[in-house]
Amino acid sequence: MRTTGRPAVVLLSGGLDSSTTLAIARSRGFQPHALTAHYGQRHAVELDAARRVAAAMGVTDHKIVTLDLRTFGGSALTADIPVPKDGVGPGIPVTYVPARNTILLSLALAWAEVLGAADLFIGVNALDYSGYPDCRPEFIRAFEALANLATKAGAEGTSQFVVHTPLLRMTKREIIRTGLDLGVDFALTVSCYDPQDDGTACGQCDACRLRLQGFAALGLMDPAPYAAGVRA
Amino acid sequence: MRTTGRPAVVLLSGGLDSSTTLAIARSRGFQPHALTAHYGQRHAVELDAARRVAAAMGVTDHKIVTLDLRTFGGSALTADIPVPKDGVGPGIPVTYVPARNTILLSLALAWAEVLGAADLFIGVNALDYSGYPDCRPEFIRAFEALANLATKAGAEGTSQFVVHTPLLRMTKREIIRTGLDLGVDFALTVSCYDPQDDGTACGQCDACRLRLQGFAALGLMDPAPYAAGVRA
Repeated sequence: MRTTGRPAVVLLSGGLDSSTTLAIARSRGFQPHALTAHYGQRHAVELDAARRVAAAMGVTDHKIVTLDLRTFGGSALTADIPVPKDGVGPGIPVTYVPARNTILLSLALAWAEVLGAADLFIGVNALDYSGYPDCRPEFIRAFEALANLATKAGAEGTSQFVVHTPLLRMTKREIIRTGLDLGVDFALTVSCYDPQDDGTACGQCDACRLRLQGFAALGLMDPAPYAAGVRA
Repeated sequence: MRTTGRPAVVLLSGGLDSSTTLAIARSRGFQPHALTAHYGQRHAVELDAARRVAAAMGVTDHKIVTLDLRTFGGSALTADIPVPKDGVGPGIPVTYVPARNTILLSLALAWAEVLGAADLFIGVNALDYSGYPDCRPEFIRAFEALANLATKAGAEGTSQFVVHTPLLRMTKREIIRTGLDLGVDFALTVSCYDPQDDGTACGQCDACRLRLQGFAALGLMDPAPYAAGVRA
């Protein structure tokens, strides 16, 4: 892997989207510093996936920051609220974690400023997604504006922060195609909101459904481990 | 203490400014929910101060969220960098914690959304302060804009988030006068960036200097405990 290039902080959850985003950042010549948040999510198996993905992609600087959003609750991912399994519906679902992407980007910004990096990458997507408000392009632009006011680097004009969202306008099928072209091993990734005790994906939550549909649209089998019967 | 009133999330570090901000929020008829971040700061004695202040003001809902910003370092408050003791100078000092107020406001926003609160309070000040970029009014306005795009409550129009900064244009003297008028017991508060092992304030860091000058301008003795000799 290249060890030169401009530094960038890449938010890496260990799922399909963020792993592809990491590959894109690298393909664009950035030196990726991967940041994973352990925020008390139900699907903490993601953390192992993030470690595997970072290692497989030769990332030499991967930090896991701990932050317990269960302190606040209010989401099926951080409180004792069931994860919906009946398909992607209209509206913002209970898997929405209040202010999650604002918090994640703030942490990425903090690290970027320490590193002297001006570039942040986040794998948000406004097409095949769950309707979360903090995945919309207007949110991303507002965060960029904030970042340049919030920081010493921005205030002194030494950095102009840019939030890169390479997946924003892609379908899930396009994301998977791009990831495969860049060598992402999707068998290492975990997207499921509610994995089984053995770490296999449920196949029924929104994240599993969107992912399985994306592979199906390409005529491919998703190589991630699923619970028995999901792909029978 | 009143138990009615609109809920508001008040960022409470346990220092002079945030304790006064809490008193102001209460005096304006809000029901304050106090949020303290244990972010790995050198001055963790603040946490005890925050607990004492919240209890003294009758706050029934006080959360301490843990988040280790030492993961990133880059500040005299979160890394092994000496705290300056030679007076408030020009420019942004090494006590600046990268993106700290962005992170703190993001956490407050998350909790507010869970509570159904639209009001956040933060004790930033743009006069007698250390020159931090994330204390400026333009930063606060940018965060408000972000909050209304970032959240389910904002996107669905059920809440219009407001970030209240009652101290923004006050001198330290005015902040202390206001706090005293509202019954704040400043003996409970800790502002020092580099407290001694026994919890007493150093009297020499920027935070101590600004605070001592504020009390002196009022002809008052700061009731907080200082290291021997500071007020000799």
